[in-house]
Amino acid sequence: MALLVQKYGGTSVGTPERIRNVAERVARTQAAGHHVVVVVSAMSGETDRLLNLARQVQSNPDPRELDVVLSTGEQVTIGLLCMALIERGLKARSYTGAQVGIHTDSAHTKARIRKIDEERMRADLADGSIVVVAGFQGIDVGGSVTTLGRGGSDTTAVALAAALKADECQIYTDVDGVYTTDPRIVPEARRLKSVTFEEMLEMASLGSKVLQIRSVEFAGKYQVKLRVLSSFEEESEGTLITFEEDQNMEQATISGIAFNRDEAKITILGVPDRPGIAYQILGPIGDANIDVDMIVQNVSHDGMTDFSFTVHRNDYHKALKILEPVVKHIKARGVEGGEKIAKVSVVGVGMRSHAGIASAAFRTLAEEGINIQMISNSEIKISIVISEKQMELAVRALHKAFGLEQPA
Amino acid sequence: MALLVQKYGGTSVGTPERIRNVAERVARTQAAGHHVVVVVSAMSGETDRLLNLARQVQSNPDPRELDVVLSTGEQVTIGLLCMALIERGLKARSYTGAQVGIHTDSAHTKARIRKIDEERMRADLADGSIVVVAGFQGIDVGGSVTTLGRGGSDTTAVALAAALKADECQIYTDVDGVYTTDPRIVPEARRLKSVTFEEMLEMASLGSKVLQIRSVEFAGKYQVKLRVLSSFEEESEGTLITFEEDQNMEQATISGIAFNRDEAKITILGVPDRPGIAYQILGPIGDANIDVDMIVQNVSHDGMTDFSFTVHRNDYHKALKILEPVVKHIKARGVEGGEKIAKVSVVGVGMRSHAGIASAAFRTLAEEGINIQMISNSEIKISIVISEKQMELAVRALHKAFGLEQPA
Repeated sequence: MALLVQKYGGTSVGTPERIRNVAERVARTQAAGHHVVVVVSAMSGETDRLLNLARQVQSNPDPRELDVVLSTGEQVTIGLLCMALIERGLKARSYTGAQVGIHTDSAHTKARIRKIDEERMRADLADGSIVVVAGFQGIDVGGSVTTLGRGGSDTTAVALAAALKADECQIYTDVDGVYTTDPRIVPEARRLKSVTFEEMLEMASLGSKVLQIRSVEFAGKYQVKLRVLSSFEEESEGTLITFEEDQNMEQATISGIAFNRDEAKITILGVPDRPGIAYQILGPIGDANIDVDMIVQNVSHDGMTDFSFTVHRNDYHKALKILEPVVKHIKARGVEGGEKIAKVSVVGVGMRSHAGIASAAFRTLAEEGINIQMISNSEIKISIVISEKQMELAVRALHKAFGLEQPA
Repeated sequence: MALLVQKYGGTSVGTPERIRNVAERVARTQAAGHHVVVVVSAMSGETDRLLNLARQVQSNPDPRELDVVLSTGEQVTIGLLCMALIERGLKARSYTGAQVGIHTDSAHTKARIRKIDEERMRADLADGSIVVVAGFQGIDVGGSVTTLGRGGSDTTAVALAAALKADECQIYTDVDGVYTTDPRIVPEARRLKSVTFEEMLEMASLGSKVLQIRSVEFAGKYQVKLRVLSSFEEESEGTLITFEEDQNMEQATISGIAFNRDEAKITILGVPDRPGIAYQILGPIGDANIDVDMIVQNVSHDGMTDFSFTVHRNDYHKALKILEPVVKHIKARGVEGGEKIAKVSVVGVGMRSHAGIASAAFRTLAEEGINIQMISNSEIKISIVISEKQMELAVRALHKAFGLEQPA
């Protein structure tokens, strides 16, 4: 007998029939002897419909009122799911974020959870009820409805699991787990039975998006056992996100190959190597709300160095424009960049204890004739920037080189 | 400087453009120096869309969860209207029924208001804000969302006006007031500048439906000044619903001619005239949840009388079936009835002090060759059942006979 929090996203509850399917799955979970708290998103398309309505009334909708409008999407789903559960003869009660007591700050459209009241849910569960909570929303200290921002339903689920000390938080999506890489590129890609929290963070931020990053961070902070499952496939056990490296981790050196072709690279050439120079370059970029991903600076020669970083492609031209006066001011030689790049990352906690992963990756790329443009690494990943044209080739070669098609 | 509660129905807020129009009207009211509380319904079609979704999930939707789903309709409108007001540079805040503190009993889908918190609205109004409240909904003692049933937004508006002791409650609809009769039948029909509460009740229940009856009763109970206006016509002052007969009432004998062709009549012939017989006939009808409108019983001859009443046409055959064993049991001679009837009513508080209204009405019908089937009356109306075919003729003749096309 466990306490499980299950979260179903917009496509999983996109039609009355799918809502009935979710009810069936929840019913099976309860029948297996578990307590279940369900978190749901708005039916797919609904949030966009409401956002569109709002924009027709006000080009830049007032944040407080936008939250009032958007939060209705999830509210409809909780009512419908409870009806489907009650239709099956089960006890079920729905709660909006405000009703169940998900207290947030007042940052409308991107609020953060501060505190969750659990008494109500516990009382319902003890009473044999299934508790159905609207994701993505809460209430601020003044009683106004807030939303957590897009994808916030994952965060709601994890936060409820943390508050209730649930045995597991199960995120149902349209994929059945975390894969060693994208199966559309490498057909042999394999679902991972488990992946560590840090690997998941790297995999998510590097393009294998199955979970909202914020929810994974939240799970890590509160040690919530997180599992990604498919709401459409019955048999799969999904992927468990763990926060401790288990014994077997020694063998599973590499968990996956992530990739991203949304970035562009920028290099400031011949930068005088003196303290504060990195800030002089990246300060104005940050002020313009441009996110920087990889940052690479190598040793200097004759007091001069090259400083490179990557930004989202949409920000590439804006960043170049911002840097024009900066380059003059710091007396650098010039600026160059490129949009036709891809970032490929080898991810795995095993890397910590295994030497030679980096060189194996470089050798693999060399054998395929792929030129490396930038490299950066962390304890659990190596990211390599290459030409976009060669990305799929690189992903396939690395997936094979690290034996990822073999069951762990 | 007055405090006004304005209520806009579903068609008035049916599109983003219409919501902007409502915002303009509210803005003008505030600019004229008034405090404004606005109550809105769901955008037209939205409640039906949600109800349809619910029925696809559960054929007979759970009442608590249905309220969770349906209440989102008004919640979307309050957010959108506030956006439109804020876009005009005004201060506005939206509240759901739960947020503003409309406390109801727990009778889901048909809840009754028990208490309204006014502090929040007063604070906002004092702060120069327009307060926008979701109609049709409230919260019960357990914190569950409740709805007041269809048309409940009128009741919300009147209840808020009562709680705030507002100077006037203005109900904006797609008609610009209460007319002497339906202009589609009598083109000379005239808008009444004012009508008493009791007349309004008779006019509403007799078919000239512009306001929810419950809201009018509520207004009467709390002495709320109620005005019906058009949200599409700018110039009209609408119709004021008053609760005291003013001086001029002596002249305005008759306010209007109402009619209804939704009823059927049933007569039990040769009923033994003894105590308890009316109950023996109408008891089983009430038990079957069939509403009875007119009830007529004349003096008896030789201990026998005829007992007649009208029911909604949809209930006609069901009622006849229920009466079969009753007729045998009470030893009546038989039962007969008819669906092709219409009820025409002459309504006016002036009737109290003016004799001869009834005979004038009967003479008018006689001159048109219209046969009277049933008659019943109250202090302020005479209702006459005639053949459905002659209804329009009767309405036109009575409208003319009482000079209703002339300005009062």
